[in-house]
Amino acid sequence: MMRIDIISGVPALLDGPLNHSIVGRAKEKELVEIFVHDLRDYSEDKHKKIDDYPYGGGAGMVLSPQPIFSCIEKLKSERSYDEVIFTSPDGNRFEQTDANALSLKKNLIILCGHYKGVDQRVRDELVTLEYSIGDYVLSGGELPAMVMTDAIVRLIPGAIGDAESALSDSFQNELLEGPIYTRPVEFKGMSVPEVLRSGDHKKVKKWREEQSIKQTKERRPDLYKKFKKNN
Amino acid sequence: MMRIDIISGVPALLDGPLNHSIVGRAKEKELVEIFVHDLRDYSEDKHKKIDDYPYGGGAGMVLSPQPIFSCIEKLKSERSYDEVIFTSPDGNRFEQTDANALSLKKNLIILCGHYKGVDQRVRDELVTLEYSIGDYVLSGGELPAMVMTDAIVRLIPGAIGDAESALSDSFQNELLEGPIYTRPVEFKGMSVPEVLRSGDHKKVKKWREEQSIKQTKERRPDLYKKFKKNN
Repeated sequence: MMRIDIISGVPALLDGPLNHSIVGRAKEKELVEIFVHDLRDYSEDKHKKIDDYPYGGGAGMVLSPQPIFSCIEKLKSERSYDEVIFTSPDGNRFEQTDANALSLKKNLIILCGHYKGVDQRVRDELVTLEYSIGDYVLSGGELPAMVMTDAIVRLIPGAIGDAESALSDSFQNELLEGPIYTRPVEFKGMSVPEVLRSGDHKKVKKWREEQSIKQTKERRPDLYKKFKKNN
Repeated sequence: MMRIDIISGVPALLDGPLNHSIVGRAKEKELVEIFVHDLRDYSEDKHKKIDDYPYGGGAGMVLSPQPIFSCIEKLKSERSYDEVIFTSPDGNRFEQTDANALSLKKNLIILCGHYKGVDQRVRDELVTLEYSIGDYVLSGGELPAMVMTDAIVRLIPGAIGDAESALSDSFQNELLEGPIYTRPVEFKGMSVPEVLRSGDHKKVKKWREEQSIKQTKERRPDLYKKFKKNN
């Protein structure tokens, strides 16, 4: 069973998303164990402080090294970890290929960055992978930790009912998915395209491929270029 | 006060992150109101179904048009909305500039995509902006909705204690931030760089700029190229 340890200064932020939907079901099916650790529990400060002012001045607080080192060293004394992941806007871009690779690991630690960041010595000494989930700033690393956990856990065999579905997702073949329709055939004067109702599987497949290529070309010329190069 | 209406088929996923940290405090300070709507409450189906099989076959379920139209039409009858945002892996990349622009709006609807997607007629008729938060597949649009909400809300004046801090974040000036340090000066044999302890503000500023450029050049050549072109 995969194990993910998430370390956070605001563990209350991690409620909800880790207990429902696909991640929740994967836990119930014993495909994954997820443990949330409150940094405050590891602080040796008498007020349980976990952050402090940055050297050199500037706005915002920085996560102190001591509680993080204590927490990660304790975890590492109990089992070996494949990766210690740090969520940070200045990390490498987290992409589907990273989710694919991480879904094959056994034990992962995800350290949630917070606000202005973390003492650099933590990154130099403990962290093995630094990821950003996108080019925008968030108030902490908790949402990115949940995003990565979701992207990884849904790829564990058995997490999604239908394995075929995970493979036909956007990004798994470098193209965006095209439009999809469900019932009713007519809704507020708008109809489902004929071809999808034709029952002709070859025609449906061809239409979907065309739509998928069209959508990618229009919306993500960067992905389309990559696709053209590889096909 | 800004208002954000989030529409979801799995509202339990939205617990936690919307009630703590910066978003939670912004709600307490009455800078933003956030309402979560359960799609099931709008279903006219006798079993409160909100999804159905895709036309043309294939794996995965598709969100039906009726509950979404009913919910959004009701909201629109009560007030006018600036944007109806749909979270989807095939949307445009959500970036800091989008968060900046959306933080100036008054009323926003965010429709959470789910799993295999939503009937195309919803996108054609109701949705005004489609965003992906990154090139990876998630089990639903709830995490992306929370990511966007967090990125937007923290920019509302007053949401963060120190306005300067939001401006010095990564991405606001096209560069990644460099390393930061806090106390103690010495930790497990690793020291805070001299320059940050020098008290010489000019030298600190210069060092930080150099580190920031170095970090960006190494980790994100794409951002570095953009920065060089503009500076």
